[in-house]
Amino acid sequence: MLDPSEPRIASPAPRQARGAASLSTGESRPRVVIVGGGFGGLHAARALAGAPVRVTLLDRHNYHLFQPLLYQVATASLSPGDIASAIRWVLRGQQNVEVLLADVTAIDPENRRVLVASPAEAGHGSASIAYDYMILASGAAHAYFGHTEWEKHAPGLKTLDDALVMRRKMLLAFEEAERQVNPDAQRRLLTFVIVGGGPTGVELAGALAEIARHSLRHDFRRIRPESARIVLVEGGPHLLPAFPEPLRVEARRALEHLGVEVRTGSIVTNVDEQGVMWRPDLRRARDRHESGRGKAAAGPQAVEERLYAATVLWAAGVAASPLGQSLGVPLDRVGRVPALPTLQVPGHPNIFVVGDLCALAQDGQPLPGVAQVAMQEGAHASRNVLRAMRGEPLEPFRYRDYGIMATIGRGSAVGEVYGVKISGWTGWLFWLFLHIFWLIGFRNRVAVLSEWAWAYVTFQRRVRLITGTDRTDGLFH
Amino acid sequence: MLDPSEPRIASPAPRQARGAASLSTGESRPRVVIVGGGFGGLHAARALAGAPVRVTLLDRHNYHLFQPLLYQVATASLSPGDIASAIRWVLRGQQNVEVLLADVTAIDPENRRVLVASPAEAGHGSASIAYDYMILASGAAHAYFGHTEWEKHAPGLKTLDDALVMRRKMLLAFEEAERQVNPDAQRRLLTFVIVGGGPTGVELAGALAEIARHSLRHDFRRIRPESARIVLVEGGPHLLPAFPEPLRVEARRALEHLGVEVRTGSIVTNVDEQGVMWRPDLRRARDRHESGRGKAAAGPQAVEERLYAATVLWAAGVAASPLGQSLGVPLDRVGRVPALPTLQVPGHPNIFVVGDLCALAQDGQPLPGVAQVAMQEGAHASRNVLRAMRGEPLEPFRYRDYGIMATIGRGSAVGEVYGVKISGWTGWLFWLFLHIFWLIGFRNRVAVLSEWAWAYVTFQRRVRLITGTDRTDGLFH
Repeated sequence: MLDPSEPRIASPAPRQARGAASLSTGESRPRVVIVGGGFGGLHAARALAGAPVRVTLLDRHNYHLFQPLLYQVATASLSPGDIASAIRWVLRGQQNVEVLLADVTAIDPENRRVLVASPAEAGHGSASIAYDYMILASGAAHAYFGHTEWEKHAPGLKTLDDALVMRRKMLLAFEEAERQVNPDAQRRLLTFVIVGGGPTGVELAGALAEIARHSLRHDFRRIRPESARIVLVEGGPHLLPAFPEPLRVEARRALEHLGVEVRTGSIVTNVDEQGVMWRPDLRRARDRHESGRGKAAAGPQAVEERLYAATVLWAAGVAASPLGQSLGVPLDRVGRVPALPTLQVPGHPNIFVVGDLCALAQDGQPLPGVAQVAMQEGAHASRNVLRAMRGEPLEPFRYRDYGIMATIGRGSAVGEVYGVKISGWTGWLFWLFLHIFWLIGFRNRVAVLSEWAWAYVTFQRRVRLITGTDRTDGLFH
Repeated sequence: MLDPSEPRIASPAPRQARGAASLSTGESRPRVVIVGGGFGGLHAARALAGAPVRVTLLDRHNYHLFQPLLYQVATASLSPGDIASAIRWVLRGQQNVEVLLADVTAIDPENRRVLVASPAEAGHGSASIAYDYMILASGAAHAYFGHTEWEKHAPGLKTLDDALVMRRKMLLAFEEAERQVNPDAQRRLLTFVIVGGGPTGVELAGALAEIARHSLRHDFRRIRPESARIVLVEGGPHLLPAFPEPLRVEARRALEHLGVEVRTGSIVTNVDEQGVMWRPDLRRARDRHESGRGKAAAGPQAVEERLYAATVLWAAGVAASPLGQSLGVPLDRVGRVPALPTLQVPGHPNIFVVGDLCALAQDGQPLPGVAQVAMQEGAHASRNVLRAMRGEPLEPFRYRDYGIMATIGRGSAVGEVYGVKISGWTGWLFWLFLHIFWLIGFRNRVAVLSEWAWAYVTFQRRVRLITGTDRTDGLFH
């Protein structure tokens, strides 16, 4: 049993093993609690290496996930182990850090505590952890524009489990189509809709198109995977809104070249077991005509359109972690915490917020929810914590933009790096290099590189395994 | 919707794509239905390559699993993708084979049909597939000696999902122990019991001991993973009963050297959320004294003994697939089908049974339930099918024994190959070579070899990821 009183969790049980010294003698040093082991939290922890603090990193999962490659797990190119590492393994050498698998339920700024649900009690009962400084890096989850009922029909992509659910749903659709001989049912099973035209949606659509056109090509006897219909639906006027115009156009061209139907300016109005419904965004008719093939894409459907699809994947809205709500400060539209330039939470000088949960503008532009921002903010927050400890003035955060990229299937990518626009094969190679380079853990780099080399040469995806306890039930309803 | 009438499933929809010809023109050729894509079924299918038959292979999973390495996925050394390949990928080049993901519910020998549950209908409604010849290779599942209620506390190891459940349970125990400061609860969380002293149990115990002693060593701040207690419980007098005496003794020595407590002659009487209970098998007291350290191991407990353990893993009894029951022939004690020497089912000349579901004796000895036997039986059954088609007399099956092996943790194995006993490091290298050699798919071989090289040099297990929708709930109850 866990005893809710603070010491049980906050002060380590004395232990004489290697490396324990730093902890058992460290009671006097201030405790920094980091909530979240994503890019923000992990880089915050690393920036505190060797500092005279006791760091406690809390995460709901035991792994740090390299999110930019998550879609590759969802599309059966990589194994979960290729893009994730146990957080405590990543930080094993940093003796002033302890990692706890814990589900943070709320923050109590008045008493300087975070409340965690205790797995030992499975829900009922909870414990709390005291902090002197807190770095809140709990990120964001995918949101369904208030239609939570859509989630069970259109899984999103934030965790490894999400990715495995997507993979299962997608592969099962082909398997079921092979068993199915009713042409309508078969067509529905071979129709895939991706909602959301951001990087995740674009990358999912590209990868899905390749699976159908290439990877599965010789595997079936009754269906032609090449005939699968892949539709990318985006509410806004453009794909990749964060990208400069030429790259957006290039991305769309590349997707359409792969046989993906792109429907911009189309607002999803319903998702159910049959498929999706959307209507054109009339306010945006004008913009649509600007973007080259927009008109064609908008085409006939002036009214609501229904598409029968067994597989709908969600890559649209995000909502910030609900933990922001317990801070008692006004949040922005998507629930993010508006931070001071120092990354502090207004009114809570010892709470810092970083990553997707942090709303911060720079030169009038809101900072995007990308890994680079989270990493830089995490490290900056930690440096400000140390400044605060030394009584020095805190410094404002300044984001250094190294660029943005997205891949479109095999051997093609678009991006702008250091202001230079790159696309096509060069872009893809560059994207590959960058992502390998940023992957945590040498081992993963080697593994992922070899996977990619193999997949590139053979068109094959090695990890086309359908796992998960409910292999089939309910997936086609 | 699936229509229950046979043609819907049995005869392929006409298709003009590459390779379809062989099917659309093949209606006249006899249909061979293979149930199960394990070692037996896969090798049966391969032995029919190029033969004038239409082969339909049915499996509940879409992957062929290299079972001998499954414990390595359970103990976080390998990823699911390393030891499994999509069945239709493995057989993609064999144009007379079609692979269907289907849950076979029963066999109807009178009408020569197999009944499959239709995922499209999620349970209600089913379809059937006609056959001229059937090769039944549905294998075996783990059994709980009639105590099905034990399963939720002591997961077994037959599928990839089983392995991921085991991995999660094991890793979560360490995570929870780190959060826990109640010494009794901590001790319970750091106690691991493996039930069953066959190869799977021995390999699990060895791998678990290494994780605790080496892999996790530097990762925790409050617990000492090295202090974990690992107990291997076996009802019989010896570990590895199928192995020759010297190797059994060697295996036990190696396990105890790794710090595993071995309890032979101990019969499990209960498994619940608290742990396990067992009693010494008195009938076998005599044998226990023979086996070297048996006496010490048996030690004080003359009566029932309770061990508090959060993690109990099941590697004991097996029960043959229930499909045997629908054949209407008498089955043996564990539900296996006693086959004729030709591998035919008595009274059903066109049904062959192979692998773990097949009960066959050779020179008075029952053939063991190992991959080698299944592979050879599968290929032999197919050759007999072709003989039957040609009106030739069928030939009796003869098993060629190449040997048996088991690994005990890192760099140690015991085995007998071509009558030569090998153990220790040589044994391990040989084991490694053999298993790499037999792995399906070149890609997997490279991946697995590199994983092993890495793990061997660094003691690290890369894929220590806790996945699964219920990360924590109920695992410690």
